[in-house]
Amino acid sequence: MKEKLTVIKVGGKIVEESETLNQLLTDFSTIPGYKLLVHGGGRSATKIAAQLGIESRMVNGRRITDLETLKVVTMVYGGLVNKNIVAGLQAKGVNAIGLTGADMDVIRSEKRPVKEVDYGYVGDVKVVNASVLANLIRQGIVPVMAPLTHDGAGSMLNTNADTIAGETAKALAEEFDVTLVYCFEKKGVLRDENDDDSVIPVITPELFEQYVSEGIIQGGMIPKLENSFSAVEAGVSQVVITQASAIHRQEGTVIRKK
Amino acid sequence: MKEKLTVIKVGGKIVEESETLNQLLTDFSTIPGYKLLVHGGGRSATKIAAQLGIESRMVNGRRITDLETLKVVTMVYGGLVNKNIVAGLQAKGVNAIGLTGADMDVIRSEKRPVKEVDYGYVGDVKVVNASVLANLIRQGIVPVMAPLTHDGAGSMLNTNADTIAGETAKALAEEFDVTLVYCFEKKGVLRDENDDDSVIPVITPELFEQYVSEGIIQGGMIPKLENSFSAVEAGVSQVVITQASAIHRQEGTVIRKK
Repeated sequence: MKEKLTVIKVGGKIVEESETLNQLLTDFSTIPGYKLLVHGGGRSATKIAAQLGIESRMVNGRRITDLETLKVVTMVYGGLVNKNIVAGLQAKGVNAIGLTGADMDVIRSEKRPVKEVDYGYVGDVKVVNASVLANLIRQGIVPVMAPLTHDGAGSMLNTNADTIAGETAKALAEEFDVTLVYCFEKKGVLRDENDDDSVIPVITPELFEQYVSEGIIQGGMIPKLENSFSAVEAGVSQVVITQASAIHRQEGTVIRKK
Repeated sequence: MKEKLTVIKVGGKIVEESETLNQLLTDFSTIPGYKLLVHGGGRSATKIAAQLGIESRMVNGRRITDLETLKVVTMVYGGLVNKNIVAGLQAKGVNAIGLTGADMDVIRSEKRPVKEVDYGYVGDVKVVNASVLANLIRQGIVPVMAPLTHDGAGSMLNTNADTIAGETAKALAEEFDVTLVYCFEKKGVLRDENDDDSVIPVITPELFEQYVSEGIIQGGMIPKLENSFSAVEAGVSQVVITQASAIHRQEGTVIRKK
Protein backbone atom coordinates (compact mmCIF):
# COMPACT_ATOMS: atom_id res chain seq x y z
CA MET A 1 0.00 0.00 0.00
CA LYS A 2 1.35 3.37 -1.00
CA GLU A 3 1.22 6.14 1.57
CA LYS A 4 -1.21 8.99 0.99
CA LEU A 5 -0.06 12.35 -0.36
CA THR A 6 -2.27 15.39 -0.86
CA VAL A 7 -1.18 17.88 -3.53
CA ILE A 8 -3.06 21.16 -3.22
CA LYS A 9 -3.11 23.97 -5.73
CA VAL A 10 -4.32 27.38 -4.60
CA GLY A 11 -4.62 30.42 -6.80
CA GLY A 12 -3.20 33.84 -6.27
CA LYS A 13 -6.38 35.37 -4.90
CA ILE A 14 -6.26 33.25 -1.75
CA VAL A 15 -2.53 33.55 -1.00
CA GLU A 16 -2.17 37.26 -1.68
CA GLU A 17 -4.47 38.59 1.02
CA SER A 18 -3.31 38.11 4.56
CA GLU A 19 -6.70 37.08 5.96
CA THR A 20 -7.54 34.46 3.37
CA LEU A 21 -3.90 33.29 3.38
CA ASN A 22 -3.94 32.83 7.14
CA GLN A 23 -7.16 30.81 6.97
CA LEU A 24 -5.76 28.70 4.15
CA LEU A 25 -2.57 27.97 6.08
CA THR A 26 -4.57 27.01 9.16
CA ASP A 27 -6.74 24.66 7.08
CA PHE A 28 -3.70 23.28 5.24
CA SER A 29 -1.86 22.61 8.49
CA THR A 30 -4.70 20.37 9.71
CA ILE A 31 -4.55 18.07 6.66
CA PRO A 32 -3.16 14.79 7.97
CA GLY A 33 -0.24 12.96 6.36
CA TYR A 34 2.08 13.93 3.57
CA LYS A 35 1.24 17.07 1.63
CA LEU A 36 2.53 19.55 -0.92
CA LEU A 37 1.28 23.02 -1.81
CA VAL A 38 1.45 24.72 -5.21
CA HIS A 39 0.57 28.41 -5.32
CA GLY A 40 -0.11 31.11 -7.87
CA GLY A 41 0.48 34.82 -7.47
CA GLY A 42 -0.65 36.48 -10.68
CA ARG A 43 -2.51 39.36 -9.08
CA SER A 44 0.54 40.46 -7.06
CA ALA A 45 2.71 40.10 -10.16
CA THR A 46 0.33 42.29 -12.16
CA LYS A 47 0.19 44.87 -9.37
CA ILE A 48 3.95 45.08 -8.84
CA ALA A 49 4.63 45.06 -12.58
CA ALA A 50 2.27 48.04 -12.91
CA GLN A 51 4.06 49.86 -10.08
CA LEU A 52 7.34 49.23 -11.94
CA GLY A 53 5.82 50.60 -15.14
CA ILE A 54 5.62 47.18 -16.81
CA GLU A 55 2.39 46.45 -18.64
CA SER A 56 0.92 42.97 -18.12
CA ARG A 57 -0.22 41.38 -21.36
CA MET A 58 -2.33 38.22 -21.22
CA VAL A 59 -3.24 35.92 -24.13
CA ASN A 60 -5.71 33.06 -23.49
CA GLY A 61 -5.33 33.72 -19.77
CA ARG A 62 -1.53 33.29 -19.95
CA ARG A 63 0.96 36.01 -19.18
CA ILE A 64 3.28 37.14 -21.98
CA THR A 65 6.61 36.99 -20.18
CA ASP A 66 9.31 39.24 -21.60
CA LEU A 67 12.62 39.58 -19.76
CA GLU A 68 11.37 42.37 -17.47
CA THR A 69 8.21 40.43 -16.66
CA LEU A 70 10.32 37.33 -15.92
CA LYS A 71 12.18 39.35 -13.29
CA VAL A 72 8.88 40.43 -11.76
CA VAL A 73 7.40 36.92 -11.58
CA THR A 74 10.68 35.51 -10.24
CA MET A 75 10.61 38.12 -7.47
CA VAL A 76 6.93 37.90 -6.71
CA TYR A 77 6.28 34.15 -7.03
CA GLY A 78 9.67 32.87 -5.84
CA GLY A 79 10.27 35.55 -3.21
CA LEU A 80 7.31 37.50 -1.89
CA VAL A 81 4.45 35.01 -2.15
CA ASN A 82 6.47 31.83 -1.60
CA LYS A 83 8.39 33.01 1.46
CA ASN A 84 5.29 34.49 3.07
CA ILE A 85 3.62 31.10 2.80
CA VAL A 86 6.69 29.25 4.06
CA ALA A 87 7.13 31.55 7.09
CA GLY A 88 3.38 31.32 7.78
CA LEU A 89 3.44 27.52 7.69
CA GLN A 90 6.52 27.35 9.92
CA ALA A 91 4.60 29.44 12.46
CA LYS A 92 1.87 26.78 12.39
CA GLY A 93 4.35 23.95 12.95
CA VAL A 94 4.49 22.80 9.33
CA ASN A 95 8.09 22.24 8.23
CA ALA A 96 7.74 23.90 4.83
CA ILE A 97 10.38 24.48 2.18
CA GLY A 98 9.86 26.88 -0.70
CA LEU A 99 10.88 25.56 -4.10
CA THR A 100 10.99 26.68 -7.68
CA GLY A 101 11.79 24.19 -10.42
CA ALA A 102 15.43 25.33 -10.34
CA ASP A 103 15.96 24.35 -6.71
CA MET A 104 17.54 20.87 -6.71
CA ASP A 105 16.44 20.75 -10.36
CA VAL A 106 12.98 19.62 -9.27
CA ILE A 107 11.18 20.77 -12.43
CA ARG A 108 12.93 21.30 -15.70
CA SER A 109 11.01 22.83 -18.55
CA GLU A 110 11.43 23.99 -22.11
CA LYS A 111 10.79 27.51 -23.33
CA ARG A 112 7.50 27.37 -25.19
CA PRO A 113 8.08 27.36 -28.96
CA VAL A 114 6.77 30.43 -30.76
CA LYS A 115 3.70 29.57 -32.84
CA GLU A 116 0.83 32.04 -33.25
CA VAL A 117 1.85 33.66 -29.97
CA ASP A 118 5.28 34.35 -28.52
CA TYR A 119 4.72 33.81 -24.82
CA GLY A 120 8.34 34.71 -24.06
CA TYR A 121 9.96 33.17 -21.00
CA VAL A 122 7.22 30.63 -20.37
CA GLY A 123 8.14 27.02 -19.69
CA ASP A 124 6.38 23.82 -20.64
CA VAL A 125 7.21 21.15 -18.07
CA LYS A 126 9.54 18.42 -19.33
CA VAL A 127 10.71 16.53 -16.23
CA VAL A 128 9.58 16.51 -12.60
CA ASN A 129 12.28 15.06 -10.34
CA ALA A 130 9.92 12.92 -8.27
CA SER A 131 12.62 11.17 -6.23
CA VAL A 132 14.00 14.47 -4.86
CA LEU A 133 10.50 15.59 -3.87
CA ALA A 134 9.62 12.17 -2.41
CA ASN A 135 12.81 12.22 -0.36
CA LEU A 136 11.87 15.58 1.18
CA ILE A 137 8.27 14.51 1.77
CA ARG A 138 9.28 11.29 3.54
CA GLN A 139 11.41 13.38 5.90
CA GLY A 140 8.24 15.23 6.93
CA ILE A 141 9.11 18.31 4.90
CA VAL A 142 6.29 20.05 3.04
CA PRO A 143 7.27 21.45 -0.37
CA VAL A 144 5.68 24.80 -1.24
CA MET A 145 6.07 25.22 -4.96
CA ALA A 146 6.08 28.52 -6.81
CA PRO A 147 4.89 28.60 -10.45
CA LEU A 148 8.44 28.87 -11.78
CA THR A 149 10.68 26.33 -13.47
CA HIS A 150 14.06 26.50 -15.19
CA ASP A 151 15.46 25.46 -18.54
CA GLY A 152 18.69 23.88 -17.28
CA ALA A 153 20.67 26.50 -19.20
CA GLY A 154 20.51 29.22 -16.56
CA SER A 155 17.12 30.80 -17.16
CA MET A 156 14.07 30.72 -14.95
CA LEU A 157 10.78 30.21 -16.80
CA ASN A 158 7.26 31.29 -15.86
CA THR A 159 5.05 28.20 -15.59
CA ASN A 160 1.33 27.81 -14.98
CA ALA A 161 0.57 26.72 -11.40
CA ASP A 162 -2.21 24.30 -12.47
CA THR A 163 0.28 22.59 -14.76
CA ILE A 164 2.91 22.38 -12.02
CA ALA A 165 0.35 20.84 -9.66
CA GLY A 166 -0.85 18.35 -12.28
CA GLU A 167 2.60 17.29 -13.46
CA THR A 168 3.94 17.05 -9.90
CA ALA A 169 0.95 14.94 -8.81
CA LYS A 170 1.45 12.62 -11.81
CA ALA A 171 5.17 12.23 -11.17
CA LEU A 172 4.63 11.50 -7.47
CA ALA A 173 1.87 8.97 -8.19
CA GLU A 174 4.55 6.31 -8.69
CA GLU A 175 5.60 6.72 -5.07
CA PHE A 176 2.42 7.79 -3.29
CA ASP A 177 -1.35 7.38 -3.32
CA VAL A 178 -1.96 10.93 -4.57
CA THR A 179 -5.03 13.10 -4.19
CA LEU A 180 -4.77 16.30 -6.23
CA VAL A 181 -6.94 19.17 -5.02
CA TYR A 182 -7.62 22.14 -7.27
CA CYS A 183 -9.07 25.08 -5.37
CA PHE A 184 -11.34 27.48 -7.21
CA GLU A 185 -14.04 29.94 -6.26
CA LYS A 186 -17.00 27.50 -6.24
CA LYS A 187 -17.73 24.56 -3.92
CA GLY A 188 -17.17 22.16 -6.81
CA VAL A 189 -18.46 21.44 -10.30
CA LEU A 190 -22.06 22.65 -10.25
CA ARG A 191 -25.06 20.98 -11.86
CA ASP A 192 -26.69 24.42 -11.99
CA GLU A 193 -24.29 27.35 -12.20
CA ASN A 194 -26.80 29.57 -10.40
CA ASP A 195 -27.09 27.20 -7.45
CA ASP A 196 -23.90 27.08 -5.37
CA ASP A 197 -25.16 24.02 -3.55
CA SER A 198 -25.73 21.90 -6.65
CA VAL A 199 -22.26 20.33 -6.43
CA ILE A 200 -21.82 17.14 -8.45
CA PRO A 201 -20.16 14.78 -5.96
CA VAL A 202 -18.36 12.41 -8.36
CA ILE A 203 -17.50 12.59 -12.05
CA THR A 204 -16.16 9.61 -13.98
CA PRO A 205 -15.33 9.64 -17.72
CA GLU A 206 -18.75 8.13 -18.43
CA LEU A 207 -20.59 10.71 -16.36
CA PHE A 208 -18.44 13.44 -17.91
CA GLU A 209 -19.56 12.48 -21.44
CA GLN A 210 -23.14 12.37 -20.29
CA TYR A 211 -22.99 15.78 -18.55
CA VAL A 212 -21.29 17.36 -21.57
CA SER A 213 -23.92 15.94 -23.95
CA GLU A 214 -26.65 17.24 -21.63
CA GLY A 215 -25.00 20.69 -21.52
CA ILE A 216 -24.59 20.49 -17.73
CA ILE A 217 -20.80 20.76 -18.05
CA GLN A 218 -19.65 23.37 -20.55
CA GLY A 219 -17.20 26.15 -21.31
CA GLY A 220 -14.01 26.50 -19.28
CA MET A 221 -14.92 23.56 -17.07
CA ILE A 222 -14.37 21.13 -19.96
CA PRO A 223 -10.56 21.58 -20.28
CA LYS A 224 -10.27 21.68 -16.45
CA LEU A 225 -11.94 18.29 -16.24
CA GLU A 226 -10.00 16.92 -19.20
CA ASN A 227 -6.80 17.81 -17.33
CA SER A 228 -8.14 16.08 -14.25
CA PHE A 229 -8.89 12.90 -16.22
CA SER A 230 -5.39 13.07 -17.69
CA ALA A 231 -4.04 13.10 -14.12
CA VAL A 232 -6.12 10.15 -12.96
CA GLU A 233 -5.21 8.22 -16.09
CA ALA A 234 -1.53 8.86 -15.28
CA GLY A 235 -1.91 7.26 -11.87
CA VAL A 236 -3.23 10.02 -9.59
CA SER A 237 -5.85 8.33 -7.39
CA GLN A 238 -8.35 11.16 -7.49
CA VAL A 239 -8.68 14.82 -8.29
CA VAL A 240 -10.87 17.04 -6.12
CA ILE A 241 -12.21 20.37 -7.34
CA THR A 242 -13.33 22.51 -4.43
CA GLN A 243 -13.13 25.80 -2.56
CA ALA A 244 -10.01 26.78 -0.63
CA SER A 245 -12.07 26.84 2.57
CA ALA A 246 -12.87 23.13 2.10
CA ILE A 247 -9.38 21.72 1.48
CA HIS A 248 -9.11 20.13 4.89
CA ARG A 249 -12.46 18.43 4.45
CA GLN A 250 -11.89 17.58 0.80
CA GLU A 251 -15.51 18.14 -0.04
CA GLY A 252 -16.37 19.20 -3.54
CA THR A 253 -16.36 17.30 -6.81
CA VAL A 254 -14.24 14.16 -6.95
CA ILE A 255 -12.90 13.10 -10.35
CA ARG A 256 -12.20 9.38 -10.59
CA LYS A 257 -11.16 6.98 -13.30
CA LYS A 258 -14.29 4.91 -12.72
CA MET B 1 38.97 13.82 10.24
CA LYS B 2 36.08 16.08 9.38
CA GLU B 3 35.30 16.64 5.70
CA LYS B 4 36.04 20.03 4.24
CA LEU B 5 33.30 22.59 3.65
CA THR B 6 33.81 25.99 2.03
CA VAL B 7 31.31 28.72 2.99
CA ILE B 8 31.51 31.68 0.63
CA LYS B 9 29.89 35.06 1.10
CA VAL B 10 29.60 37.36 -1.90
CA GLY B 11 28.13 40.82 -1.85
CA GLY B 12 25.44 42.28 -3.98
CA LYS B 13 27.73 44.03 -6.41
CA ILE B 14 29.04 40.72 -7.79
CA VAL B 15 25.77 38.83 -8.01
CA GLU B 16 23.66 41.63 -9.46
CA GLU B 17 25.47 42.10 -12.76
CA SER B 18 25.19 39.25 -15.22
CA GLU B 19 28.85 39.30 -16.29
CA THR B 20 30.40 39.28 -12.82
CA LEU B 21 27.73 36.83 -11.65
CA ASN B 22 28.52 34.44 -14.47
CA GLN B 23 32.24 34.57 -13.68
CA LEU B 24 31.55 34.03 -9.99
CA LEU B 25 29.36 31.02 -10.69
CA THR B 26 32.02 29.54 -12.97
CA ASP B 27 34.69 30.04 -10.29
CA PHE B 28 32.37 28.73 -7.57
CA SER B 29 31.54 25.62 -9.58
CA THR B 30 35.24 24.67 -9.75
CA ILE B 31 35.70 24.69 -5.95
CA PRO B 32 36.15 21.05 -4.97
CA GLY B 33 34.21 19.36 -2.19
CA TYR B 34 31.30 20.53 -0.12
CA LYS B 35 30.33 24.17 -0.42
CA LEU B 36 27.67 26.73 0.48
CA LEU B 37 27.07 30.21 -0.91
CA VAL B 38 25.64 33.22 0.94
CA HIS B 39 24.71 36.24 -1.15
CA GLY B 40 23.72 39.85 -0.67
CA GLY B 41 21.58 41.95 -2.97
CA GLY B 42 21.36 45.40 -1.44
CA ARG B 43 21.90 47.35 -4.63
CA SER B 44 19.03 45.62 -6.42
CA ALA B 45 16.83 46.11 -3.37
CA THR B 46 17.62 49.83 -3.31
CA LYS B 47 16.98 50.14 -7.04
CA ILE B 48 13.67 48.27 -7.03
CA ALA B 49 12.54 50.03 -3.86
CA ALA B 50 13.21 53.36 -5.59
CA GLN B 51 11.22 52.24 -8.66
CA LEU B 52 8.34 51.35 -6.31
CA GLY B 53 8.59 54.78 -4.68
CA ILE B 54 10.07 53.43 -1.43
CA GLU B 55 12.99 55.39 -0.03
CA SER B 56 15.93 53.34 1.26
CA ARG B 57 17.17 54.56 4.63
CA MET B 58 20.47 53.25 5.96
CA VAL B 59 21.87 53.67 9.49
CA ASN B 60 25.44 52.44 10.19
CA GLY B 61 25.35 50.68 6.83
CA ARG B 62 22.20 48.75 7.77
CA ARG B 63 18.87 49.08 5.99
CA ILE B 64 15.92 50.36 8.01
CA THR B 65 13.32 47.74 7.12
CA ASP B 66 9.73 48.87 7.44
CA LEU B 67 6.91 46.59 6.23
CA GLU B 68 7.07 47.82 2.63
CA THR B 69 10.86 47.45 2.58
CA LEU B 70 10.54 43.94 4.01
CA LYS B 71 8.36 43.02 1.02
CA VAL B 72 11.00 44.43 -1.32
CA VAL B 73 13.92 42.55 0.26
CA THR B 74 11.88 39.34 0.44
CA MET B 75 11.16 39.65 -3.29
CA VAL B 76 14.62 40.74 -4.34
CA TYR B 77 16.84 38.60 -2.09
CA GLY B 78 14.63 35.52 -1.83
CA GLY B 79 13.28 35.63 -5.40
CA LEU B 80 15.18 37.61 -8.00
CA VAL B 81 18.79 37.31 -6.82
CA ASN B 82 18.54 33.89 -5.21
CA LYS B 83 16.77 32.12 -8.07
CA ASN B 84 19.06 33.66 -10.68
CA ILE B 85 22.03 32.21 -8.82
CA VAL B 86 20.35 28.83 -8.36
CA ALA B 87 19.38 28.56 -12.04
CA GLY B 88 22.88 29.70 -13.04
CA LEU B 89 24.53 27.08 -10.84
CA GLN B 90 22.24 24.33 -12.12
CA ALA B 91 23.36 25.23 -15.64
CA LYS B 92 26.94 24.65 -14.50
CA GLY B 93 26.15 21.25 -13.04
CA VAL B 94 26.00 22.40 -9.41
CA ASN B 95 22.92 21.00 -7.66
CA ALA B 96 21.97 24.21 -5.85
CA ILE B 97 19.00 24.88 -3.62
CA GLY B 98 17.94 28.39 -2.68
CA LEU B 99 17.12 28.90 0.98
CA THR B 100 15.99 31.62 3.32
CA GLY B 101 16.01 31.05 7.06
CA ALA B 102 12.30 30.15 6.89
CA ASP B 103 12.82 27.21 4.56
CA MET B 104 13.01 24.07 6.71
CA ASP B 105 13.50 26.51 9.60
CA VAL B 106 17.22 26.70 8.83
CA ILE B 107 17.80 30.07 10.50
CA ARG B 108 15.53 31.46 13.13
CA SER B 109 16.09 34.99 14.33
CA GLU B 110 14.68 37.58 16.64
CA LYS B 111 13.45 41.02 15.59
CA ARG B 112 16.13 43.44 16.71
CA PRO B 113 15.06 45.27 19.88
CA VAL B 114 14.56 49.00 19.45
CA LYS B 115 17.34 50.98 21.19
CA GLU B 116 18.68 54.23 19.72
CA VAL B 117 17.56 53.05 16.28
CA ASP B 118 14.44 51.17 15.21
CA TYR B 119 15.74 48.98 12.41
CA GLY B 120 12.26 47.56 11.82
CA TYR B 121 11.97 44.04 10.43
CA VAL B 122 15.63 43.16 10.92
CA GLY B 123 16.56 39.85 12.49
CA ASP B 124 19.41 38.94 14.81
CA VAL B 125 20.27 35.28 14.30
CA LYS B 126 19.28 33.01 17.19
CA VAL B 127 19.57 29.45 15.89
CA VAL B 128 21.11 27.93 12.78
CA ASN B 129 19.73 24.44 12.16
CA ALA B 130 23.09 22.86 11.29
CA SER B 131 21.82 19.29 10.99
CA VAL B 132 19.32 20.19 8.26
CA LEU B 133 22.03 22.01 6.28
CA ALA B 134 24.58 19.23 6.88
CA ASN B 135 22.06 16.66 5.65
CA LEU B 136 21.59 18.57 2.37
CA ILE B 137 25.33 19.14 1.95
CA ARG B 138 26.17 15.45 2.45
CA GLN B 139 23.70 14.62 -0.32
CA GLY B 140 25.79 16.78 -2.67
CA ILE B 141 23.32 19.65 -2.60
CA VAL B 142 24.74 23.18 -2.47
CA PRO B 143 22.73 25.61 -0.32
CA VAL B 144 22.47 29.13 -1.71
CA MET B 145 21.39 31.33 1.17
CA ALA B 146 19.60 34.65 0.83
CA PRO B 147 20.06 37.25 3.59
CA LEU B 148 16.62 36.59 5.05
CA THR B 149 15.56 34.74 8.18
CA HIS B 150 12.24 34.28 10.00
CA ASP B 151 11.00 34.79 13.52
CA GLY B 152 9.07 31.53 13.87
CA ALA B 153 5.86 33.52 14.27
CA GLY B 154 5.15 34.01 10.56
CA SER B 155 7.32 36.99 9.67
CA MET B 156 10.36 37.10 7.45
CA LEU B 157 13.22 39.27 8.75
CA ASN B 158 15.96 41.08 6.85
CA THR B 159 19.34 39.79 8.04
CA ASN B 160 22.88 40.86 7.20
CA ALA B 161 24.57 38.47 4.76
CA ASP B 162 27.95 38.62 6.56
CA THR B 163 26.20 37.59 9.76
CA ILE B 164 24.39 34.73 8.04
CA ALA B 165 27.69 33.50 6.58
CA GLY B 166 29.48 33.77 9.94
CA GLU B 167 26.75 32.11 12.00
CA THR B 168 26.23 29.36 9.43
CA ALA B 169 29.96 28.65 9.27
CA LYS B 170 30.14 28.47 13.08
CA ALA B 171 27.14 26.15 13.32
CA LEU B 172 28.51 23.84 10.63
CA ALA B 173 31.98 23.74 12.22
CA GLU B 174 30.77 20.95 14.51
CA GLU B 175 30.20 18.74 11.48
CA PHE B 176 32.77 19.93 8.94
CA ASP B 177 36.27 21.39 8.65
CA VAL B 178 34.98 24.82 7.58
CA THR B 179 36.77 27.52 5.62
CA LEU B 180 34.78 30.75 5.54
CA VAL B 181 35.56 33.06 2.62
CA TYR B 182 34.45 36.70 2.70
CA CYS B 183 34.67 38.34 -0.71
CA PHE B 184 35.27 42.05 -0.89
CA GLU B 185 36.65 44.47 -3.46
CA LYS B 186 40.37 44.11 -2.55
CA LYS B 187 42.71 41.14 -2.92
CA GLY B 188 42.88 40.81 0.88
CA VAL B 189 43.78 42.87 3.94
CA LEU B 190 46.37 45.35 2.67
CA ARG B 191 49.52 46.46 4.48
CA ASP B 192 49.33 49.67 2.41
CA GLU B 193 45.87 50.70 1.29
CA ASN B 194 47.33 52.39 -1.79
CA ASP B 195 49.13 49.24 -2.91
CA ASP B 196 46.72 46.55 -4.07
CA ASP B 197 49.51 43.99 -4.03
CA SER B 198 50.48 44.52 -0.37
CA VAL B 199 48.21 41.70 0.82
CA ILE B 200 48.98 40.42 4.32
CA PRO B 201 48.99 36.63 3.86
CA VAL B 202 48.14 35.50 7.40
CA ILE B 203 46.71 37.29 10.44
CA THR B 204 46.62 35.70 13.89
CA PRO B 205 45.28 37.43 17.04
CA GLU B 206 48.86 38.37 17.97
CA LEU B 207 49.60 39.86 14.55
CA PHE B 208 46.23 41.60 14.60
CA GLU B 209 47.09 43.42 17.85
CA GLN B 210 50.45 44.37 16.44
CA TYR B 211 49.01 45.68 13.13
CA VAL B 212 46.32 47.66 14.96
CA SER B 213 48.90 49.24 17.30
CA GLU B 214 51.05 50.10 14.27
CA GLY B 215 48.06 51.65 12.49
CA ILE B 216 48.36 49.20 9.56
CA ILE B 217 44.90 47.82 10.25
CA GLN B 218 42.30 50.48 11.01
CA GLY B 219 38.76 51.68 10.44
CA GLY B 220 36.13 49.31 9.06
CA MET B 221 38.62 46.49 8.78
CA ILE B 222 38.79 46.17 12.58
CA PRO B 223 35.21 44.89 13.14
CA LYS B 224 35.52 42.69 10.01
CA LEU B 225 38.58 41.00 11.52
CA GLU B 226 37.05 40.81 14.99
CA ASN B 227 34.13 38.91 13.44
CA SER B 228 36.58 36.63 11.69
CA PHE B 229 38.38 35.86 14.97
CA SER B 230 35.02 35.19 16.60
CA ALA B 231 34.38 32.61 13.86
CA VAL B 232 37.76 30.86 14.26
CA GLU B 233 37.34 30.86 18.03
CA ALA B 234 33.95 29.18 17.57
CA GLY B 235 35.54 26.34 15.62
CA VAL B 236 35.77 27.57 12.01
CA SER B 237 39.19 26.36 10.75
CA GLN B 238 40.07 29.52 8.91
CA VAL B 239 38.57 32.67 7.45
CA VAL B 240 39.80 34.00 4.12
CA ILE B 241 39.28 37.61 3.06
CA THR B 242 39.72 37.98 -0.69
CA GLN B 243 38.33 39.13 -4.01
CA ALA B 244 35.44 37.31 -5.67
CA SER B 245 37.70 36.52 -8.62
CA ALA B 246 40.01 34.54 -6.29
CA ILE B 247 37.50 32.32 -4.48
CA HIS B 248 38.51 29.19 -6.35
CA ARG B 249 42.18 29.78 -5.53
CA GLN B 250 41.52 30.99 -1.99
CA GLU B 251 44.31 33.50 -2.16
CA GLY B 252 44.04 36.58 0.00
CA THR B 253 44.39 37.09 3.72
CA VAL B 254 43.96 34.02 5.91
CA ILE B 255 42.73 34.58 9.45
CA ARG B 256 43.79 31.84 11.83
CA LYS B 257 43.56 31.17 15.55
CA LYS B 258 47.36 30.91 15.77
